[in-house]
Amino acid sequence: MDQEKTPMLLGTATAARHDAALRSRRHLLLAVAGLLAAPVLLLATVFSWKGTVSPTPALVEEHQLPTLNVDVAPTNLLAKCDEKFFTQTLDHFDVGAPTYQQRYFVCDKHFRPGGVMFFYVGNEADVELYLNHTGLMWENADEFGAMLVFAEHRYFGKSVPFGKDVTKHMQYLSTEQTLADYAVLITYLKKESKRDIPVIGFGGSYGGMLGSWFRMKYPHIIDGVVAGSAPILSFLGDEVPLDKGSFERIVTFDASEEAGSAPNCASNIRRTWPAIRTLGKTEQGRKQLKKALSLCDPVKVESEEDVDGVMDWAKSAFDYMAMGNYPYPSSYIMNGASVLPAYPVRVACSYVADDFAADDDVGLLSAFSESLGVYYNSTKDQECYELSASSNESALDSDFWDYIFCSEIYQPQNVDAVNDMFWPVPWNFTADNENCKSEWGIEIRPLWATTQYGGRKALKAASNIVFSNGNYDPWSGTGVLQNYSDSVVALSVEGGAHHLDLMFSNKLDTPSVLAVREAEKQHMHKWAREFYGRKAVTASE
Amino acid sequence: MDQEKTPMLLGTATAARHDAALRSRRHLLLAVAGLLAAPVLLLATVFSWKGTVSPTPALVEEHQLPTLNVDVAPTNLLAKCDEKFFTQTLDHFDVGAPTYQQRYFVCDKHFRPGGVMFFYVGNEADVELYLNHTGLMWENADEFGAMLVFAEHRYFGKSVPFGKDVTKHMQYLSTEQTLADYAVLITYLKKESKRDIPVIGFGGSYGGMLGSWFRMKYPHIIDGVVAGSAPILSFLGDEVPLDKGSFERIVTFDASEEAGSAPNCASNIRRTWPAIRTLGKTEQGRKQLKKALSLCDPVKVESEEDVDGVMDWAKSAFDYMAMGNYPYPSSYIMNGASVLPAYPVRVACSYVADDFAADDDVGLLSAFSESLGVYYNSTKDQECYELSASSNESALDSDFWDYIFCSEIYQPQNVDAVNDMFWPVPWNFTADNENCKSEWGIEIRPLWATTQYGGRKALKAASNIVFSNGNYDPWSGTGVLQNYSDSVVALSVEGGAHHLDLMFSNKLDTPSVLAVREAEKQHMHKWAREFYGRKAVTASE
Repeated sequence: MDQEKTPMLLGTATAARHDAALRSRRHLLLAVAGLLAAPVLLLATVFSWKGTVSPTPALVEEHQLPTLNVDVAPTNLLAKCDEKFFTQTLDHFDVGAPTYQQRYFVCDKHFRPGGVMFFYVGNEADVELYLNHTGLMWENADEFGAMLVFAEHRYFGKSVPFGKDVTKHMQYLSTEQTLADYAVLITYLKKESKRDIPVIGFGGSYGGMLGSWFRMKYPHIIDGVVAGSAPILSFLGDEVPLDKGSFERIVTFDASEEAGSAPNCASNIRRTWPAIRTLGKTEQGRKQLKKALSLCDPVKVESEEDVDGVMDWAKSAFDYMAMGNYPYPSSYIMNGASVLPAYPVRVACSYVADDFAADDDVGLLSAFSESLGVYYNSTKDQECYELSASSNESALDSDFWDYIFCSEIYQPQNVDAVNDMFWPVPWNFTADNENCKSEWGIEIRPLWATTQYGGRKALKAASNIVFSNGNYDPWSGTGVLQNYSDSVVALSVEGGAHHLDLMFSNKLDTPSVLAVREAEKQHMHKWAREFYGRKAVTASE
Repeated sequence: MDQEKTPMLLGTATAARHDAALRSRRHLLLAVAGLLAAPVLLLATVFSWKGTVSPTPALVEEHQLPTLNVDVAPTNLLAKCDEKFFTQTLDHFDVGAPTYQQRYFVCDKHFRPGGVMFFYVGNEADVELYLNHTGLMWENADEFGAMLVFAEHRYFGKSVPFGKDVTKHMQYLSTEQTLADYAVLITYLKKESKRDIPVIGFGGSYGGMLGSWFRMKYPHIIDGVVAGSAPILSFLGDEVPLDKGSFERIVTFDASEEAGSAPNCASNIRRTWPAIRTLGKTEQGRKQLKKALSLCDPVKVESEEDVDGVMDWAKSAFDYMAMGNYPYPSSYIMNGASVLPAYPVRVACSYVADDFAADDDVGLLSAFSESLGVYYNSTKDQECYELSASSNESALDSDFWDYIFCSEIYQPQNVDAVNDMFWPVPWNFTADNENCKSEWGIEIRPLWATTQYGGRKALKAASNIVFSNGNYDPWSGTGVLQNYSDSVVALSVEGGAHHLDLMFSNKLDTPSVLAVREAEKQHMHKWAREFYGRKAVTASE
């Protein structure tokens, strides 16, 4: 079901603006987490480029690395692990519910007695993605004598219940059931391995949200959690009002001189939207627009609504590049399909660094088109941009993320075009709710995430969670940026994008991410010591 | 459904021993919590007494109070409250689930700005029972400027979903859904009343279990909890092995000289079981048995299995009297249908205080029969004991408790006849599980309660819970009896039975219960201060 709706994500002609904006918001986390939202994957691979691309500017060269240094993760990680399946009940709170097979990987080469379990708190993608990218677990495995476990989130990857009928059984897809899966799995693994060891959780993005909630709800199961780029303060109903505008504000920050981008970048991008709108008002203008933006001939830009779709599509590129604004070339945000350059926002900005005359909208848009190519033509083999895409496998994952968003973790966003470089998209709960109703037949519960997981007040009662956030990451605005106690702490990755600290080490890593990883390690050691210390006391009681 | 099984609870002739024992174990908490398990109510009201009862002994007189002082709760409490209903989703983790109407009472005469909410965490009975008996809330309402809320547990009282079809929809009856009900209700109440106030929870027995778990899982919703007689350590899978024998060991303690009972009591009661068994082997003996125990003529005692049922029935009296072993006459354990005398175990023991000759089993059993009358003929108007009962309203509640026991909070028990005065009933998981399968079609998950709620390790991570336990209360053996931190503390009610501290004050209250109530109040004040202190900080941030 619902695959015909996927093109809405691409901002195609049929998508109403608010609708498309909502959807692009929704799926950000998805991509954030490294799962490629279908459209991104498609845009990155299906487009055929027919326009003209400027030679790669010096700025880009500067940050290009030999292929060898791109995503330096070892390529044979899967071979170090055993793929396993565990029978889980689909409803832990209803013992009579049906079961499904949850996939997980155990990588046990590094374990030694007195060691720990490193547990990846799977999020909304095939868990192999996290296995292959969570360098922080692999690189510390020896030092901690850790057995590594990567648990797959229900409904994703190979952990899909009901086979092809899955979308008829969406009621079992929830954060609470997912956390209970992990609690049951860990209990089983400790018992089965006869290892009474501390368990240290890791999660990025939505996985970091789950990880921190896991520690709050199941402190007896998980001894501490490193939560990378987890925007757990992005919900309504908390003690202080939600900052709904932080996402695009930080995307805009990434396009600023302070973040290493060309000084003119944000102001030029801000100019593009009225320019696009103005051209979009007439048939003649729309033709110019298509040409200036290098859209492929078949792309339908026949109405102002179509133009809105083009704008959403263009904005998405900056949203994703900001999340993937890493100091070295990385394929993570592209789900391995292609590689973004180091600091992709800086590279994209380099194309719109000039002063454009007030009447040179076409010149501006042509330059802007090239900046979009950093993201939409990262393979440099496309001749023009197409905005349509056929469905593919990950469309279902995208749907599932959408369901979770509608059912439990509704994150309101607001774009004001004052603090950000886009155009105003006021928060519209009614529209969001209508969208969820029409897609899933369910109503958003705007206060649910805070009722269930507690926001700031829950953080004050929690323990043993390290939250890390990079100031280049648009999601950091609703992350945890202050310490709540000695053991609930916020670490700041200066110049870091989406959970950079969880990635494999790279020689272009910034000093800040190195320091953050070191601090995380100290917390991990403390959690392990606490476990063994308490165990000794319990044994002597 | 299942009402025809209710007589098994009574230990009728058709009930296999283990089965009956299991069921009597299961339902203890139910009665503990003040909900009258159907059989108890029936036994207390349906029996017609045809035997001879000794004059009330001096011991009893000593503790009798004028009727006025029996259960000194004000009788007009309900009139101080508004009965309300709130639309709750039946599955908080599946937004598309149906809804039901949850009943709650708000008693708002005592509130003042700067005050608190006192929230009764409803357990397995009509919430009016808790409203009428939780004196600790009423008597502190003025001092704290408290609005009182009594929330009814789903499936009980008037909060039954699906009407007559309820037993076809048991999947929504779970502790997790119940806690989520309370979280949503409190969030609503604070918002609706525009009162940003601390919430202090109260719960007794299963309500105390729920209350402490509520604080562990939702510390942002409930600021602290007084958990009276909450046996949250009665599950498998914790850090230390479960003490499965504590319940009957403490019942036996109540029948000891140390607990104020006649010195010979426990040894005499221990003698009754082989005496009953011996008589039960022959038809002639069974006739003698019926006569000695004053069983009514129609009671079927025709086989050794029937005799087992009689033994279960007799043991139940001591189980319930131990739970209701209060220092003053009380109808609480009898659900208001009749009144147990002060220290009922002492009174019952007074009937079996003599030395009985080794060959005087009949004399022993006749005396024993009278001790059973303290419980089964508390109204003193029955002429003999009947062991049969027709179904009545509370049978459904009893079923629902049974379902919770099977589905989530399986409490293994073991009776060894060495540390207790009964006969050996070894823990038998297979039999327990078969029972749950045949009744509900579900299998027990023996580790679930500890996986979900965490046992001792979760206590170490928790905060702001006061656990109180009386050493006369058979459930205290698996309660929390030691401090885990400054704010997770154990208070001991010396000479107290089941959550005595939650009851209304009585002039026969012991010094210990007065001290415990005072300590509880200090914790409650601390929780309120913490809330307002943090609120001041948040406001100034």
